[in-house]
Amino acid sequence: MSEYNAPLRDMQFVLNELGHLDQVSGLPDCEEMGPDLVEAILGEAGKFASGVLSPLNVSGDHEGARWNDGEVSTPVGWKKAYEQFVEGGWNALSCEPEFGGQGLPRLVSALVEEMWNGANVSFGLCPMLTRGAIEAIELRGSEHLKATYLPKMVSGEWTGSMNLTEPQAGSDLAAVRSRAEPQGDGSYRVYGQKIFITYGEHNLTDNIVHLVLARVPGAPDGVKGISLFVVPKFLVNADGSLGARNDVRCVSIEHKLGIHASPTAVLAFGDQGGATGWLVGEENRGLEYMFIMMNAARFSVGIEGIGLSERAYQRALAYARDRVQGSELGAKSRDKVAIIRHPDVRRMLLSMKSRTEAMRALACEVATAMDIAQRHADTAQRQHSQAFVDLMIPVVKGWSTENAIDIASLGVQIHGGMGFIEETGAAQHLRDARITSIYEGTTGIQAADLIGRKIARDQGQAVARVIAQMRGVEQQLDDADDVVLSHIAQTLHQGILALEKAVRFIVANYDAQVRQVSVGSVPFLELFGIVAGGWQLARAALVAQQQLSDGSDEAPFYQAKLHTARFYADHLLVRTGGLAQTLIQGGDAALAMDDECF
Amino acid sequence: MSEYNAPLRDMQFVLNELGHLDQVSGLPDCEEMGPDLVEAILGEAGKFASGVLSPLNVSGDHEGARWNDGEVSTPVGWKKAYEQFVEGGWNALSCEPEFGGQGLPRLVSALVEEMWNGANVSFGLCPMLTRGAIEAIELRGSEHLKATYLPKMVSGEWTGSMNLTEPQAGSDLAAVRSRAEPQGDGSYRVYGQKIFITYGEHNLTDNIVHLVLARVPGAPDGVKGISLFVVPKFLVNADGSLGARNDVRCVSIEHKLGIHASPTAVLAFGDQGGATGWLVGEENRGLEYMFIMMNAARFSVGIEGIGLSERAYQRALAYARDRVQGSELGAKSRDKVAIIRHPDVRRMLLSMKSRTEAMRALACEVATAMDIAQRHADTAQRQHSQAFVDLMIPVVKGWSTENAIDIASLGVQIHGGMGFIEETGAAQHLRDARITSIYEGTTGIQAADLIGRKIARDQGQAVARVIAQMRGVEQQLDDADDVVLSHIAQTLHQGILALEKAVRFIVANYDAQVRQVSVGSVPFLELFGIVAGGWQLARAALVAQQQLSDGSDEAPFYQAKLHTARFYADHLLVRTGGLAQTLIQGGDAALAMDDECF
Repeated sequence: MSEYNAPLRDMQFVLNELGHLDQVSGLPDCEEMGPDLVEAILGEAGKFASGVLSPLNVSGDHEGARWNDGEVSTPVGWKKAYEQFVEGGWNALSCEPEFGGQGLPRLVSALVEEMWNGANVSFGLCPMLTRGAIEAIELRGSEHLKATYLPKMVSGEWTGSMNLTEPQAGSDLAAVRSRAEPQGDGSYRVYGQKIFITYGEHNLTDNIVHLVLARVPGAPDGVKGISLFVVPKFLVNADGSLGARNDVRCVSIEHKLGIHASPTAVLAFGDQGGATGWLVGEENRGLEYMFIMMNAARFSVGIEGIGLSERAYQRALAYARDRVQGSELGAKSRDKVAIIRHPDVRRMLLSMKSRTEAMRALACEVATAMDIAQRHADTAQRQHSQAFVDLMIPVVKGWSTENAIDIASLGVQIHGGMGFIEETGAAQHLRDARITSIYEGTTGIQAADLIGRKIARDQGQAVARVIAQMRGVEQQLDDADDVVLSHIAQTLHQGILALEKAVRFIVANYDAQVRQVSVGSVPFLELFGIVAGGWQLARAALVAQQQLSDGSDEAPFYQAKLHTARFYADHLLVRTGGLAQTLIQGGDAALAMDDECF
Repeated sequence: MSEYNAPLRDMQFVLNELGHLDQVSGLPDCEEMGPDLVEAILGEAGKFASGVLSPLNVSGDHEGARWNDGEVSTPVGWKKAYEQFVEGGWNALSCEPEFGGQGLPRLVSALVEEMWNGANVSFGLCPMLTRGAIEAIELRGSEHLKATYLPKMVSGEWTGSMNLTEPQAGSDLAAVRSRAEPQGDGSYRVYGQKIFITYGEHNLTDNIVHLVLARVPGAPDGVKGISLFVVPKFLVNADGSLGARNDVRCVSIEHKLGIHASPTAVLAFGDQGGATGWLVGEENRGLEYMFIMMNAARFSVGIEGIGLSERAYQRALAYARDRVQGSELGAKSRDKVAIIRHPDVRRMLLSMKSRTEAMRALACEVATAMDIAQRHADTAQRQHSQAFVDLMIPVVKGWSTENAIDIASLGVQIHGGMGFIEETGAAQHLRDARITSIYEGTTGIQAADLIGRKIARDQGQAVARVIAQMRGVEQQLDDADDVVLSHIAQTLHQGILALEKAVRFIVANYDAQVRQVSVGSVPFLELFGIVAGGWQLARAALVAQQQLSDGSDEAPFYQAKLHTARFYADHLLVRTGGLAQTLIQGGDAALAMDDECF
């Protein structure tokens, strides 16, 4: 069975040759982040991913997390791997130095995160959720909350969880009913049931810090009456030691299609008199804080999609090289060949590979902008970068996860009948990937956010700046006077035109015809993702062409980058015209149908 | 949990209003097949599907088939359901009357088959495989074989299995190694291991009749040296009673992603001296016979895709009507609404619904042609219909199954987080559907067959006749002078142009550039499927428009047919230009990549 190997060369290509690391290492507090240090970090992370996490991926899926009387045990080997993870300092990688973190730029930590997810997405979810909880406390928690929880959460000694969903409140958090009553001593008593809580209960650490959405008495209805609370599994004594067990219990865990090793808990708060919690920030502003975390989490789920895609690709590629079946089409010899020789298998592999590389490059573009938005000395630069990040997060999340499902499914297909056999492992990637387009906001929610808050609201200004950058790359392709680059330029041009047309339609019609435009929101998100990915691969092709004409001694690597970009143009970018047409003319029928006639 | 209900009204629409049944009931031996009798048959089948088979779908998935020391037990309730199935005469439905069958036209039996698969695809596989074995014996078996096996296989007292695959011989049957040695008494001793044998062992019947591919001594290499044998689990005495246990054993069954209740057996033939078998037809012509069965089986797997799509749609629709979440976009009221009101949910539902209806109508078009090819008095008519059937089988198989996977995945998405929870049932449809694009020839194999044997070989003549029919429908749409029909005509026109352009490219380049063209074979299959489906839905729209202008008292039903066709045009047909572009320009990069650089 093939295992995961971190794609270090490809990652370095994105970091160093697409120019991202240069931008980031020029920022305040990032001066040390030169290529050598980053290479060393990624190398070590790669070893941990393939040596420790990857071997637990299949056994974790098979065994799954288990619930017994309120306790949840993780699969064999999980606890040890988590200890090593914490000991290695991996949990603290991207956290603030003030609380023991290493303060790595997001650009670098995003690639490390891709490795955890490629190796073992069920494992990767635990630190991902912890980081979300850390951020909320860091940003809005009182000094007391910070001092009490952050050092141990940053180190990974304790984990965090995010408690949003309730049975009646999924995508619609306005429907949250959990409540919190102030006790007059600064604490609250929290009551309610939360579902779908990732790592809401487990045996990896002594304590779990739950971040919980609930309503205080007299709070307004809807999203404006939701507050955010810290509710630890065990209360923490003044000296930092663990105190009494809090009134939060894991009632059950879910039986899921995938990510079996990641416990998805139903948590009951306050069944025995009230769980003790502390307010984060101000009352009734919980949703706002949650959205800060949520944006980070959405980006991280996009990264999950990339990691899963990379792993599905590696497995399918290994099988395609190994499996001998049929003779070569168009050749005289009847000798049997490895299936990688078959044109349709090559198509599937390149469809997986090209999209994975496009998603990674795009995510790094966004991560770089996150670092700039956080650290750049110039306010306008920070604001522009933040606007770009806000615009792109739904694309990274929605497009990378929908791709991941399709890519994992292609991975199954390349295995033929063996792909359907669980022991092969390809099916697990599909089962695991299937959640990514759902949690932290479905693709529909991402698309609604994209067309509404991110495009219509600023009349398409942020997206216009991105399109201008894309046009710049198109120009460079044209200027290069190379037959492959010109070909890529043509399809990229086709994609940019489709994107512009679609954006104009959204800006012109969103306010007056929001339902109409919304029917096409997901097709538009796909269109945007495809063009943004094409822009990134076109940049890669420019670098590759330059290297080749400079006589690089890595010619095969750069040739592959050129072919990959060209494949993407001919197989993905060509879809954009149809997607724009769907957005523009595809709303009527869906809205005209009577509900009863579906 | 929603259950399966046979879509009787939609099926009658296809049969009666799209004119298929009229064509079939005009054929010899089909005179009785009027709308009333067919309605009665479908009604009864629908009751059996929803009343007996559907309730076992989830429990069958959960329990799965179990292997114990060579014996395989099906899940609780399975044996009783199979008895009822046989008692009801359902197994004999489409078989020849000579051996006890009811000789129903394929048009009608295809819709009944859709119901079995919609209700319970794991169950439906058993009679599907039996029918394949029956056909092989009927067509090429000796009188002795026919008399010995057919009556009990037709009634369903015994089942059949198809034994093609071996570990080294999957898509490439030339690599089959099983061997058969003549014993001089008309029998052979068969040796070898077969894998992926659906219902290769089970406890539903007293006997199982295996159809097995093997090589006789001195047979030529490759596909021209394969013969077909009947190898029963129990030998049959002269009086028809069961004799000795044959030397075929079930070594294990597979642990699969889906269709858990359908046992997928590894069978060892001849470990204890040789399994006794009888040649079907002539030596070395086994692959030819197998292909007759295989074509029928491929069509049936397409039907599986349609049944699964219908069921996934029904479940998602029920959830979308039931689940209240969020308020209505664009409305003033903040009241919570069922999610079917959300534009993106409507889009997903209509994407599922429109494709399911398109696939069903297309399959019925092909089934009608099968009946004409078999029974029509006129030779030229039979030949044209057979050419159409041959052309369309890879499309029905490949397109319907790829759609089914996507449709089942959309079904999961509509359920949000609940879709990922196994108890909901939506995930099972995705797991079950995932095999359909693999077995009986992967989509890649279908696409290779389509562009090579079905299009390039006759220089596009058969496909030209289909395109002419499509153009006729386009003309009717234009002539109707109706705004919706004109809109559909425009996108259908766009699709037909893309299809023609693609066909021209294939015909012009297949011989000289087979590898190049083959990179685009699957995108071309998708393109063909989309346009063929659009042609069928355009026919439906014409009928619906006529009914509406005639003042039908089923106006909502026909309105929905119009909206569905329009939705399909704007969301599916618009993709065809991009797919043609991929075929025409997308071969270079995939072939230029060095194998080592993937």
